[in-house]
Amino acid sequence: MNYREESLKKHAEWKGKIETVCRVPTDSREALSLAYTPGVAEPCLAIQKDIEKSFELTRRWNTVAVITDGTAILGLGDIGPEAGMPVMEGKCALFKAYGGVDAFPICLKTKDPDEIVKTIKIISGSFGGINLEDISAPRCFEVETRLKEELDIPVFHDDQHGTAIVMTAALINSLKLVGKRKEDLKVVINGAGAAGIAIGKMIMAWGVKDLTMVDRFGIICEGDESLNSAHAEISKVTNRAHLKGKLADAMKGADVFIGVSAPNCVTKEMVASMADKAIVYTCANPVPEIQRQDALDAGAYIVGTGSSEHPNQINNVLVFPGLFRGALDVRAATVNREMMIAAAEGIASCVTDKQLSRDYILPYAYDKSAHDCVAKAVAEAAKRTGVAKI
Amino acid sequence: MNYREESLKKHAEWKGKIETVCRVPTDSREALSLAYTPGVAEPCLAIQKDIEKSFELTRRWNTVAVITDGTAILGLGDIGPEAGMPVMEGKCALFKAYGGVDAFPICLKTKDPDEIVKTIKIISGSFGGINLEDISAPRCFEVETRLKEELDIPVFHDDQHGTAIVMTAALINSLKLVGKRKEDLKVVINGAGAAGIAIGKMIMAWGVKDLTMVDRFGIICEGDESLNSAHAEISKVTNRAHLKGKLADAMKGADVFIGVSAPNCVTKEMVASMADKAIVYTCANPVPEIQRQDALDAGAYIVGTGSSEHPNQINNVLVFPGLFRGALDVRAATVNREMMIAAAEGIASCVTDKQLSRDYILPYAYDKSAHDCVAKAVAEAAKRTGVAKI
Repeated sequence: MNYREESLKKHAEWKGKIETVCRVPTDSREALSLAYTPGVAEPCLAIQKDIEKSFELTRRWNTVAVITDGTAILGLGDIGPEAGMPVMEGKCALFKAYGGVDAFPICLKTKDPDEIVKTIKIISGSFGGINLEDISAPRCFEVETRLKEELDIPVFHDDQHGTAIVMTAALINSLKLVGKRKEDLKVVINGAGAAGIAIGKMIMAWGVKDLTMVDRFGIICEGDESLNSAHAEISKVTNRAHLKGKLADAMKGADVFIGVSAPNCVTKEMVASMADKAIVYTCANPVPEIQRQDALDAGAYIVGTGSSEHPNQINNVLVFPGLFRGALDVRAATVNREMMIAAAEGIASCVTDKQLSRDYILPYAYDKSAHDCVAKAVAEAAKRTGVAKI
Repeated sequence: MNYREESLKKHAEWKGKIETVCRVPTDSREALSLAYTPGVAEPCLAIQKDIEKSFELTRRWNTVAVITDGTAILGLGDIGPEAGMPVMEGKCALFKAYGGVDAFPICLKTKDPDEIVKTIKIISGSFGGINLEDISAPRCFEVETRLKEELDIPVFHDDQHGTAIVMTAALINSLKLVGKRKEDLKVVINGAGAAGIAIGKMIMAWGVKDLTMVDRFGIICEGDESLNSAHAEISKVTNRAHLKGKLADAMKGADVFIGVSAPNCVTKEMVASMADKAIVYTCANPVPEIQRQDALDAGAYIVGTGSSEHPNQINNVLVFPGLFRGALDVRAATVNREMMIAAAEGIASCVTDKQLSRDYILPYAYDKSAHDCVAKAVAEAAKRTGVAKI
């Protein structure tokens, strides 16, 4: 099937992938008096006395805003807020289908980080959580960091942490198959944008010790004065050997290659130079860093991709519905690292030892039970770390 | 029934009067590839080429934001954005139940007109229309005026124009019963806030010639230097006799009294001083300007109130669902005066000559056919006046 052509037809038929529905009776004078005036004054006054009641007397307890500025939509780049809407709506549809979350898409007509932060703060009282989406780096770091500091509801930039969580889940299960320990791994990440840096921080927090980050200019090395602030920060804990050079140099002897970068930038020779039982995740989309079959031919033991047309899709759809479901269920004040690691472990645990194979390291994104599992793990982690309000 | 007590219980049970639902299949790899990646890239690119396609390929065509800053919630005043949410959610529920409109409530954490305008502009690309709600005067005038100038989707401040439209509808039908012509009426409006001024402008645009506005300081008279800008503006076309004095002075000989003011400010004597077959609309809430029975006892021929517990409720719930339904159906670029008058005439036309009586001048708010009638009239007016885009 030509998914893109068919999808355009379907979108024209659907005329929207989500809708708002009314949950209360409205067909009589009495019904109106309860759901609207004069009765509604009482829940209003109850919330005025205690704002936390907004989570009990309105839909806020189950509501997430899916917010973009349209600057990094899929692999399409800066296509504008209105053009980002089909992705945001799709995300909201999946939020409901897999997590039971009422999500609403908001596309912002500004690219200025101050305005983005201010706008989201101003509307935040209507939501139980904020899912940031497809905001380009490095602005996305500032926006997320400031909002996390200033809001007391969960804020989550999916392009960073959703990708990092599902990648960690893939790694947890891949290691079972190759029989290696996370502490002993040599990992290379190619691509040091929002996703790459988040993956790096996440797998190090989880337990990876030896990580080398590479961007289009080559290996990121501490002390290089051309590094931007995000790269300079991560350079202090990665590439401890202070290796310099290109991607090919970094990949020699590596156990794991994680690509969140550009099409066709990895050769069969590079994969062949990796360690025994190499793990290769190629997430560039729609064209990967190296074709799956080429990676396998060159000796990779496990290959994961960003595509749904191959086994082992590294798909962040596995993360956000369950993560917010869990966070909302315990009214978490934030999304912390422990909740993210719990989400990764939750996803990984959905593949039984019997199911686990080189071609099945992750559950399917449309497997509802996987999302339930993530929600449970995240809610427990929130309670354990003291950020759950209920 | 004690509506307020019962309503609080119901709100705790409902846990939200609206929810977002998913309208597309999500239960297979193929379904995901169409509704989300990779297929979704194609509708994104189609909108990037032509932003108007956002009304065909996403839910934007049917979506209205219900926005407040929480400063004038019901008769409760400035209770804050979160506390305003039950009213906004109720409004969204009615938008769907009566107009089929997908409405989403957004409560703003700011009272600054510049910030309100800026925030709404920044999020406007996600919506097909903006319903402003419970924003206190005089800020509401500036906010609405600026947004109408700067956005190309319908912007409607319900507290002003919803009330004005339903009041005009009440007047249209009342005149049939008292056998007077709009051109000959002497009308007094008590209360010169957002609703009072909007009613004044609306009924004059419709055809009333002799209008006197009164506020708590007395009759509004041209040239009085203590008038604020909104009052000074309306003083130029009202009270042409340059009458000075109090409400009692204005009401002498009046055919119509419209109260959007304060409890118990009208006496039986004042009503008795009005013209023959006097029309009295008392919309102060929950306690009216004068009790219905007292007004009738003093000689009023028709009495309308803001309460659902009496006949002739002047209820703006009759307006907004159909008004936005009609505007969205023809993708109107704005809501103009002709559309508002059409809405009033549409509401009035739902009461047949046979049904029309002193105790039945308006359809019930929960009568779906009235909303359909408003929608049709508004869509036709939008087309007639050239603001319909389809």
